[in-house]
Amino acid sequence: MKFCSNCGHNELEFKIPDLDNLPRFCCPKCGTIFYSNPKIITGTISYIDNQVLLCKRAIQPRYGLWTLPAGFMENGETIENGAFRETLEETGTEVEIKSLYGIFNIPQISQVYMLFLANLKNLDFKATTESLEVRLFTEQEIPWEDLAFPFVPLTLKNFFKDIDKNDFPLRIETIERPKIKKT
Amino acid sequence: MKFCSNCGHNELEFKIPDLDNLPRFCCPKCGTIFYSNPKIITGTISYIDNQVLLCKRAIQPRYGLWTLPAGFMENGETIENGAFRETLEETGTEVEIKSLYGIFNIPQISQVYMLFLANLKNLDFKATTESLEVRLFTEQEIPWEDLAFPFVPLTLKNFFKDIDKNDFPLRIETIERPKIKKT
Repeated sequence: MKFCSNCGHNELEFKIPDLDNLPRFCCPKCGTIFYSNPKIITGTISYIDNQVLLCKRAIQPRYGLWTLPAGFMENGETIENGAFRETLEETGTEVEIKSLYGIFNIPQISQVYMLFLANLKNLDFKATTESLEVRLFTEQEIPWEDLAFPFVPLTLKNFFKDIDKNDFPLRIETIERPKIKKT
Repeated sequence: MKFCSNCGHNELEFKIPDLDNLPRFCCPKCGTIFYSNPKIITGTISYIDNQVLLCKRAIQPRYGLWTLPAGFMENGETIENGAFRETLEETGTEVEIKSLYGIFNIPQISQVYMLFLANLKNLDFKATTESLEVRLFTEQEIPWEDLAFPFVPLTLKNFFKDIDKNDFPLRIETIERPKIKKT
């Protein structure tokens, strides 16, 4: 952030505002304070019988790897609506959103994943502009070596454990990303 | 948003970027796309026996009204850490975070509240820079007419119902704010 988006001033200060306790970008000219906060990624583990719907990513990052349908929650929607929308956008099918099943904190990148169980109501899922391929997988068929993000195997392992008992408790987990050495 | 915070250009376009489906502020000069997403408010319903900890707000909005300790989640923290931090900042006491108890979507203002049950470990809570007064309330003592935000009575009513059964299921609710007529 180099310029004030309110007044165009080009010497923002990164400082702790009055009555605050964390540094923020502040404009010394017009007084605007710029806050940055974590983002929510919302999505589903959509399933039918003992099969789960995965998408092969058609976009970066992790092009060509498999993921659960999920994406950034948008302004003006609920987390459930966002999970439904993202699933539709990535898989072409309208699912029935059920209970909240997994929350993943990823503090290093200031993201919170929120994943809902969802019933696949019909089999009209298909490749989309966001997914090269969309298909159902049993536990034995999951491409464990080709999953896009750490939350995907964590969620799938929980799911296949829980489906045997038909009991799906919400789990909240924190994912630590490997630290990248600065060269 | 009037100026590009990356290059200072002052004629941003509000348009749907390529491969997207919602309008965003876009800079025609440097190509930066500005996303705006919902924010998480994280906090606690901190209690001991059948009494709940509330804070009388020392800041706007809703100065002088009572609320549960909660505030904006910050970058780099987990929702649980944020709930602990906000409770400490507003009440001066370190609570023990337990299960996630309430999620409130407020789509009209693009906020998601996430409230955890928390054990009050000791009685060292006190007024802070953010709270004029901090105290425990039984159900009969709650100042129902002087609560700051709609999520507060909703959460308190659920809590006093659930405490009788000692069973605290997570509830996800959506709060519709009254529409304000433009004059």
